[in-house]
Amino acid sequence: MKIAVLGTGMVGRALAGRLADLGHEVAVGTRDVADTLSSEEYASWQEGHPTVVLRPFREVGEFGDVVLNAVAGIHALAALEAVGAAALSGKVLLDLAIPLDLSAGLPPTLTTANTDSLGEQIQAAFPDALVVKSLHTVYYEVMIDPARVPGEHSIFVAGNDEAAKTMVSGILEQFGWPAGSIIDLGDITAARATEMYSRLFFALYGRLGSFDFNINVVRAGA
Amino acid sequence: MKIAVLGTGMVGRALAGRLADLGHEVAVGTRDVADTLSSEEYASWQEGHPTVVLRPFREVGEFGDVVLNAVAGIHALAALEAVGAAALSGKVLLDLAIPLDLSAGLPPTLTTANTDSLGEQIQAAFPDALVVKSLHTVYYEVMIDPARVPGEHSIFVAGNDEAAKTMVSGILEQFGWPAGSIIDLGDITAARATEMYSRLFFALYGRLGSFDFNINVVRAGA
Repeated sequence: MKIAVLGTGMVGRALAGRLADLGHEVAVGTRDVADTLSSEEYASWQEGHPTVVLRPFREVGEFGDVVLNAVAGIHALAALEAVGAAALSGKVLLDLAIPLDLSAGLPPTLTTANTDSLGEQIQAAFPDALVVKSLHTVYYEVMIDPARVPGEHSIFVAGNDEAAKTMVSGILEQFGWPAGSIIDLGDITAARATEMYSRLFFALYGRLGSFDFNINVVRAGA
Repeated sequence: MKIAVLGTGMVGRALAGRLADLGHEVAVGTRDVADTLSSEEYASWQEGHPTVVLRPFREVGEFGDVVLNAVAGIHALAALEAVGAAALSGKVLLDLAIPLDLSAGLPPTLTTANTDSLGEQIQAAFPDALVVKSLHTVYYEVMIDPARVPGEHSIFVAGNDEAAKTMVSGILEQFGWPAGSIIDLGDITAARATEMYSRLFFALYGRLGSFDFNINVVRAGA
């Protein structure tokens, strides 16, 4: 599959590297290619991942069969505007950004919550994109390697398009998430649920002192 | 122990009944005793729990060594005002209310979230009370009988006073929560985490069609 990953930070790089290792054609999108390549951190990562290409947002949007939004929540809508509605039309857009306001440190607050969510804002801004919210309830290392956390634990998908959620679930399974661990929460309004969970995620991080954790949904009669 | 339970709804009744069965002296608090007793639902429950007394808010506040707030979130501060700051001073106040706005049905929104929480509002309004936020992350039937959900699953406590959290953890253990399942999230600001989790709770309820579920925090190296 041709996969566009928006975002050159540690989350974007980890996803891009893992997807390339899985055999996908991966292009990482950035606002300014030269600026990104001038970063020692990115350049050294690039050396280790020679098959991954770095391109401007608009080009990777046209390249990808699927687009992953791994840009920080506060910049997500601007990055997607740079990709452009035309490139996103009819395409699966896996959004794993959280609208974190980290200006006061940890634990963060959210720039939108309760009666709206970043997932919904993205779907509203790009009505022809097939937005699926997923993966953002775990740290990026766990996203791409769920076995870092032992035993059974859960990952969520939410979105308006069933086929898009099926495609995203396939990517999750390639990352190592068992099919039975993937919980479909319904349409994109459920992005509120998982984005608001981030406050508990950061409280647990504060308590456990490690990002290698997750929650498992346990139910009677399962 | 003498325990005051604020609230005559299904949550308050379930907690009061369970605490009485455990051998505690229990008084249920209400705004208007005659009005509550005129309810067929309450009266029939009362018949099955003859040791539980029903008293006005102010009286139960004076009676209880511990006060449980099981009033609906939107009425919680008013009920506690009726109990009075004097009766709450120096006392453990176990708050299990969620600030739900159910006016638009399920899933509910919250009347406060993100940069504040009901738990914090209660602590601010009654600075001499030892507020502990707990139990509200599961349905009331699971609160008092965690074995309804099989296997390991987690329950949270948050509050500013360590001794108060220890006392509340003792009540949780009497309900059947193993000590190892109780996670201390820190001070009362962590009430934001567990109150905001309620959106995911209701999304999961919508998906599972049952309230007999909970989350288990799974971590590496545990």
